Amino acid sequence: MAHLSGDNTKLIQRVRRLKGQLEGIERMLVDGEDCYKILQNTAACRGALNSLTRQLMEEHIVHHIEQEASASEPIKAASRDLREILHSYLK
Amino acid sequence: MAHLSGDNTKLIQRVRRLKGQLEGIERMLVDGEDCYKILQNTAACRGALNSLTRQLMEEHIVHHIEQEASASEPIKAASRDLREILHSYLK
Amino acid sequence: MAHLSGDNTKLIQRVRRLKGQLEGIERMLVDGEDCYKILQNTAACRGALNSLTRQLMEEHIVHHIEQEASASEPIKAASRDLREILHSYLK
Amino acid sequence: MAHLSGDNTKLIQRVRRLKGQLEGIERMLVDGEDCYKILQNTAACRGALNSLTRQLMEEHIVHHIEQEASASEPIKAASRDLREILHSYLK
Repeated sequence: MAHLSGDNTKLIQRVRRLKGQLEGIERMLVDGEDCYKILQNTAACRGALNSLTRQLMEEHIVHHIEQEASASEPIKAASRDLREILHSYLK
Repeated sequence: MAHLSGDNTKLIQRVRRLKGQLEGIERMLVDGEDCYKILQNTAACRGALNSLTRQLMEEHIVHHIEQEASASEPIKAASRDLREILHSYLK
Repeated sequence: MAHLSGDNTKLIQRVRRLKGQLEGIERMLVDGEDCYKILQNTAACRGALNSLTRQLMEEHIVHHIEQEASASEPIKAASRDLREILHSYLK
Repeated sequence: MAHLSGDNTKLIQRVRRLKGQLEGIERMLVDGEDCYKILQNTAACRGALNSLTRQLMEEHIVHHIEQEASASEPIKAASRDLREILHSYLK
């Protein structure tokens, strides 16, 4: 399986932001912060992880299916439909 | 876009079972049943709807991408990988 | 465990609308409709089921915890926080 | 709102493991690893984040509702039911 399309910078930045969010949660736990605030931050982390997942899946579908030289128009159309459906499922 | 692969009987049975589960929840609400029991049934409905979703996505990927006459081996491999990934996400 | 708070009409209407959505999906399957359209409708069903779940949980927390005669202010505050957190998780 | 119950060590360890998983994903992206493998690791991260969320919610409910001095038996019973329901929703 070929690799991700060229420049992963945006994906890497996303992962680093997620790590930063987790570091924030770690500090709050060490400081004995209120669990309500920690749960709010965990919910934000979950949203960020879903967006990362969505982008990775999009890249997989575009790079390995839609941009394949042999991909016919019906395959490309089905692939675009699938990306749209996944977008609504991985909010 | 072509239609679902031939025999939809299993999918239709799944939808009918889901309708039956919802009818059960409706009766419990009308009878003023305990909300804890209703929530347990709603959780079961959610699982059934996720399985229906997973099967529909599988059918879409198999029928419109993998079984397309023009689908190359790299496209088929990427499509199989995607189905596996979706399986873990739509538990 | 006491029952749901008085008037379940809104909850019952929600369940009936969900049943109607499923009937629509059933017809599309019987008619061999395009799986992309069916998947869009299934996504809408999933959203409706999540909202039903959220409302049931809210009712359980409000009726059985917050409105309990013995509920102290700290319990009510923790209960309100929990409802807010659940709202962001069950979108 | 009072803080989390005493010893957060287990929660902190969970967050640190999650950070380690994200560091793994970051390395795979920098190395141009296969997106299928990265998606598998992201799915594992998602499961770990859901478990962390579940444990935080449990702690919030137990510490701020069930273990409150004024909590009556009906409140404790409703709280236990809620924890059970949440367990099935945040798998």
